[in-house]
Amino acid sequence: MSCWLQDKTWEDAAKAIEASGGVAIIPVGSVEQHGYHLPLGTDSYVAITLAEDAAEQTGAVVTPPVWFGWSPHHMVRPGTITIRPEVLADLTYDIIKSVAAHGLKKIILINGHRIVNIIWMQICAERAQRELGVTVKIYDPAYMSKDIVGKLGFGPVGHAEEVESSHMLCRYPELCHLERAKDNPIKETPLFSVDPCFTHDTLCYVPSTLEHARKNAEIAGGTAGEPTKSDPEKGRIYHEHLVKNLVAVIRMLQEAG
Amino acid sequence: MSCWLQDKTWEDAAKAIEASGGVAIIPVGSVEQHGYHLPLGTDSYVAITLAEDAAEQTGAVVTPPVWFGWSPHHMVRPGTITIRPEVLADLTYDIIKSVAAHGLKKIILINGHRIVNIIWMQICAERAQRELGVTVKIYDPAYMSKDIVGKLGFGPVGHAEEVESSHMLCRYPELCHLERAKDNPIKETPLFSVDPCFTHDTLCYVPSTLEHARKNAEIAGGTAGEPTKSDPEKGRIYHEHLVKNLVAVIRMLQEAG
Amino acid sequence: MSCWLQDKTWEDAAKAIEASGGVAIIPVGSVEQHGYHLPLGTDSYVAITLAEDAAEQTGAVVTPPVWFGWSPHHMVRPGTITIRPEVLADLTYDIIKSVAAHGLKKIILINGHRIVNIIWMQICAERAQRELGVTVKIYDPAYMSKDIVGKLGFGPVGHAEEVESSHMLCRYPELCHLERAKDNPIKETPLFSVDPCFTHDTLCYVPSTLEHARKNAEIAGGTAGEPTKSDPEKGRIYHEHLVKNLVAVIRMLQEAG
Amino acid sequence: MSCWLQDKTWEDAAKAIEASGGVAIIPVGSVEQHGYHLPLGTDSYVAITLAEDAAEQTGAVVTPPVWFGWSPHHMVRPGTITIRPEVLADLTYDIIKSVAAHGLKKIILINGHRIVNIIWMQICAERAQRELGVTVKIYDPAYMSKDIVGKLGFGPVGHAEEVESSHMLCRYPELCHLERAKDNPIKETPLFSVDPCFTHDTLCYVPSTLEHARKNAEIAGGTAGEPTKSDPEKGRIYHEHLVKNLVAVIRMLQEAG
Amino acid sequence: MSCWLQDKTWEDAAKAIEASGGVAIIPVGSVEQHGYHLPLGTDSYVAITLAEDAAEQTGAVVTPPVWFGWSPHHMVRPGTITIRPEVLADLTYDIIKSVAAHGLKKIILINGHRIVNIIWMQICAERAQRELGVTVKIYDPAYMSKDIVGKLGFGPVGHAEEVESSHMLCRYPELCHLERAKDNPIKETPLFSVDPCFTHDTLCYVPSTLEHARKNAEIAGGTAGEPTKSDPEKGRIYHEHLVKNLVAVIRMLQEAG
Amino acid sequence: MSCWLQDKTWEDAAKAIEASGGVAIIPVGSVEQHGYHLPLGTDSYVAITLAEDAAEQTGAVVTPPVWFGWSPHHMVRPGTITIRPEVLADLTYDIIKSVAAHGLKKIILINGHRIVNIIWMQICAERAQRELGVTVKIYDPAYMSKDIVGKLGFGPVGHAEEVESSHMLCRYPELCHLERAKDNPIKETPLFSVDPCFTHDTLCYVPSTLEHARKNAEIAGGTAGEPTKSDPEKGRIYHEHLVKNLVAVIRMLQEAG
Repeated sequence: MSCWLQDKTWEDAAKAIEASGGVAIIPVGSVEQHGYHLPLGTDSYVAITLAEDAAEQTGAVVTPPVWFGWSPHHMVRPGTITIRPEVLADLTYDIIKSVAAHGLKKIILINGHRIVNIIWMQICAERAQRELGVTVKIYDPAYMSKDIVGKLGFGPVGHAEEVESSHMLCRYPELCHLERAKDNPIKETPLFSVDPCFTHDTLCYVPSTLEHARKNAEIAGGTAGEPTKSDPEKGRIYHEHLVKNLVAVIRMLQEAG
Repeated sequence: MSCWLQDKTWEDAAKAIEASGGVAIIPVGSVEQHGYHLPLGTDSYVAITLAEDAAEQTGAVVTPPVWFGWSPHHMVRPGTITIRPEVLADLTYDIIKSVAAHGLKKIILINGHRIVNIIWMQICAERAQRELGVTVKIYDPAYMSKDIVGKLGFGPVGHAEEVESSHMLCRYPELCHLERAKDNPIKETPLFSVDPCFTHDTLCYVPSTLEHARKNAEIAGGTAGEPTKSDPEKGRIYHEHLVKNLVAVIRMLQEAG
Repeated sequence: MSCWLQDKTWEDAAKAIEASGGVAIIPVGSVEQHGYHLPLGTDSYVAITLAEDAAEQTGAVVTPPVWFGWSPHHMVRPGTITIRPEVLADLTYDIIKSVAAHGLKKIILINGHRIVNIIWMQICAERAQRELGVTVKIYDPAYMSKDIVGKLGFGPVGHAEEVESSHMLCRYPELCHLERAKDNPIKETPLFSVDPCFTHDTLCYVPSTLEHARKNAEIAGGTAGEPTKSDPEKGRIYHEHLVKNLVAVIRMLQEAG
Repeated sequence: MSCWLQDKTWEDAAKAIEASGGVAIIPVGSVEQHGYHLPLGTDSYVAITLAEDAAEQTGAVVTPPVWFGWSPHHMVRPGTITIRPEVLADLTYDIIKSVAAHGLKKIILINGHRIVNIIWMQICAERAQRELGVTVKIYDPAYMSKDIVGKLGFGPVGHAEEVESSHMLCRYPELCHLERAKDNPIKETPLFSVDPCFTHDTLCYVPSTLEHARKNAEIAGGTAGEPTKSDPEKGRIYHEHLVKNLVAVIRMLQEAG
Repeated sequence: MSCWLQDKTWEDAAKAIEASGGVAIIPVGSVEQHGYHLPLGTDSYVAITLAEDAAEQTGAVVTPPVWFGWSPHHMVRPGTITIRPEVLADLTYDIIKSVAAHGLKKIILINGHRIVNIIWMQICAERAQRELGVTVKIYDPAYMSKDIVGKLGFGPVGHAEEVESSHMLCRYPELCHLERAKDNPIKETPLFSVDPCFTHDTLCYVPSTLEHARKNAEIAGGTAGEPTKSDPEKGRIYHEHLVKNLVAVIRMLQEAG
Repeated sequence: MSCWLQDKTWEDAAKAIEASGGVAIIPVGSVEQHGYHLPLGTDSYVAITLAEDAAEQTGAVVTPPVWFGWSPHHMVRPGTITIRPEVLADLTYDIIKSVAAHGLKKIILINGHRIVNIIWMQICAERAQRELGVTVKIYDPAYMSKDIVGKLGFGPVGHAEEVESSHMLCRYPELCHLERAKDNPIKETPLFSVDPCFTHDTLCYVPSTLEHARKNAEIAGGTAGEPTKSDPEKGRIYHEHLVKNLVAVIRMLQEAG
């Protein structure tokens, strides 16, 4: 049976909540350019597929996805949609408040959009924990795959690079056009990296300016990284690693009583 | 090919925008109790199916759905999610602003959630028209089927009644449980009706209080109307009428130059 | 004795509240162009005269009027004042909160400005009902005269048309200049009407853009409809119908205990 | 002819604006307890009568009054209405923005409510001057009568005291009930006075707490001062002094080009 | 030992709060041009030195200073920093809320920036008193030296004039450059003065427009008044008067129980 | 000469801006419990000392410090002050906007408060870059010392641990009470670490709940880590490393033209 809340009658939802151990997953992504080869909804699809697979194993309830993210710098390519971070924080706060009223007081925000969404999610999560008495965890694939990306031979986190592309090739091959992919190998910048695995001194992340994003988008259609090195089998291992971790987080919450 | 923006690469999105005559559809619904027999996501599914069918005929671009609506009074039943109207207006404003930046300046908000969402959509639409120079139309099935509901023998607009149920039976039979449906025939109230076809003196709509909604939800699980009279064939006629009108609105916008 | 709160000492106000059955009326209008022949304050005067006449019969307390409304599209003509809808909702919320603190927990918002003000009133009313535990009714002349406008031979709702003009001629003849009135008969628009009596498929109302309003204002000075057909005697019948309905709503609230 | 904007057609408003030298008056008051003897609307009536008399001499345009003020501490007596200061600042900003769009770029806010309203008016005025390029003056009777209150033998500014009462007796005798007035002579407080004429060291004004206001309201029904010493003839001199000053301010603005 | 909260461990802070009688001082200033001869931080230094000297005598706890004020009109000279008044009110509200949670429920806001900061402090103070149950006093040197400035032979309050300059010369001589000072004697304006000692009819204060401030800044580098008449000895008397008054206010609060 | 803006006249500020290459530093910290041995203002002092030393070498202009941070979880110990993140973002935005108007368009936010402040700084920085056309860098000691903390033998980032304590012992020995320090060694948590050097899978940071913070504060007075292992000499090496990196960032900005 579907793990999605929107597919249940309220009676079936009540049973699912009862069986969930109080855990709700809210998948959040973005609609933003992902190079020549990946769909605009990539980040949302990443969050959706992780939610579905972990929910199946654990009985966690999944709310409808928040398709939209904070993507001011990707507006340089058509189709990108960007929502102000305070609006996203408010929207997600209201979702949490609503499900908490029905007994889902352990919330996992899955962020398919990497570092940019984390910012407003932290604002939202702190407020929800303080005002609503819930527990909120922010689960981000880039931070939850630090143990494995090196082993898989992936380069650093960029955009629409081999990590995301391998994952999408594995889970949504019909939406991928790998034949159109163009590489844009990531160069080192002094005192800065956006990669969670980076072990040297770094400034903190700030979303790029439009000017900077525009220059980058001219090189390889918005790609940063080497998608031509993607591999669905590596994507499968990556996906299973992420699902395993997500299941572990859900179990911890369910057992926390 | 999919009409959904999230399924396209930015290059394919650029082509679709070019071919759309500048028209974007934003489907908006709700996650709220729909009696014993319909799924929580009914209103969103209504908006989604209308968007898909009209887009196919016209080439309009469809953004990902806004799954969530303003449903304060339906919080009396588990699974309902309610978002503050100002947050929904801000979210939808940002979606409009984003797609307008890519050339989609003729926007249709499809509201599967009837009268409650219309309120904040009007706030959002006026602001978008004034500040962004776009055209925004609000398309609501209840207002767009006044010519046909009488002929189909449907009673007045209620909640999860024979109109919505017939529509869902036709388009999403796998999500319906008509065998669980319970009737709650709509009684006349002096000087008040929420039905767009009502031809007598009436106060204006205000969302019910929780107290009032709770009483109602105890009668027939949240249903107002007579879903047991639903009929997928009537649902089909109703759906085609709505799609025809939606296509007409899109064509008018496309031709407006 | 005056029904207006502002004219009473607080001791007299206390007595009036005691005698009111807990019902307060808040008259709301606008300051906006009303063609060549009606004053800018027409909508406010409509709300004021209804409040006064119904209060006299029922003992409801009347707060000072909110003279200002949401009129972005009428800014095309001098003298129009437009207030943002969220500001009006906040202002009216605070009025309701204040009078509720003194025991007036049954509120009627009279809207002399028709459909535009209804939008923010709905936002305000829902919030007040939910947060303050009050009951709020929105009383709008256009919706409360559906039973009679046809019988009186009035055309559809427009702006400064024969309905409003007849009403003003009856109640405030000294402010009317019917000799300057110019007609601008309302043409049918496909799939759209702003008239509450309209029985066919329609898009929902969105306030006009300035461009559209400007064009319209050039035809007959901002009039939409046929004011030259106005008649104070019809205005009297219309007024008495509205007062009768308003008294009925007040009585229902007073009896609701 | 009436000085009030709301009583004019837009054509007459256009002529009045032309003749005004660009000066608009916005009368602002409050609805708050004024002891046993004065009406709740006293502060608004004070602003209204000053506006009317000065407009007659100068041709300044008068907008409808803002009947409501910031009166949190007076909520201890029935009938008082208090609006949040940020809402009042926003409302008045929008009024200024609207009239400025029609050519009224020299604004006088008349504050009948003394020191409390001045606070948000300063916020509003600074913003309007900076963002809209208008000139805004705040005219308050207590600050504009420092030259005369001593000569008239009035005591310090309190609430519903002999100054306000004499003024109301002169201009609105039918709304006054001097026979009910009760005195509550103002005692000196160390290092604090609210009187603009006070010449010694003082803390700055902060609106009283409800607790403090409640205690005060128990002594003389909310009065602070000695209303039994009121005199309509002194009220007349006081009124004429205020009108003279207001006319002088209007003339300065009209001549500023 | 330092009176400053930031210099204490939390254990020492707990002891200091215990010994303070519940009184906290929050020094607030500005960073704005102060003519050719005084530093940008003058207003903050004024608040800091008063806080330090009064805390030493009374045991009041002093929070870190709010260095920034509302200075829109002084942006005409380099180095000025202006913060929106609502942001300052929110910031200071949160400081008050935090210290109140630790038992400091009697708050003194020292305003070194004169009339402009008073405005948002009043908004903040009313809200804090109403929502947090604290007592808030606004202590401003210009209002707290009315008894003495005349005796000292100082002219009216201007900007960077002999009053401020004498005070700074006494307390922070190393930051003053009196040799660069240029006079700009204050001229009378009809019906307006910003001086708290002014005893005649006056409009209320509104921060200058940039245009007006620019003109003024061209005369004497932003000075209004006669700083060349400054005298550190007069500054000492002025300072001691202010400290004496501040100590008196603290003692009153400490004794209020 | 002082690097601080507040100590300069506007003429001296103008010269300093000219000489700065357009770079401004805004030091931001917090007032929050730092165990038994460090002062509440530790985070602010960290930011201040880094700013001073780097400014001396580079000529960057330093604004007054923002003493206050976002510390909701540390409210469990007396003296802590917490400001809402949106207020801090607004405040810092206004500081940036002000200095940018004077030509300082390259901004470095130094965050002495580690991960919590980074969140709102990212919101602020993105908005400032987009709306004001400035460049904003977020410099955080924990992220800027990843290359050295291991070599110095420091354990992971906690609170008031040996890293912060060594730094404070080196720069502000008079404010430290190392003899009172109590250790609370950091235990591993499954799938979570707040340490920027952590190389394994992790959830993202969310500020602790009050309940969690309270438990922690009971163990070692709020300390997390092993301050008894602090060493001022290690603090010196750590400080010099941080200053070197900060100088490098400033030079990069100055050279960016």
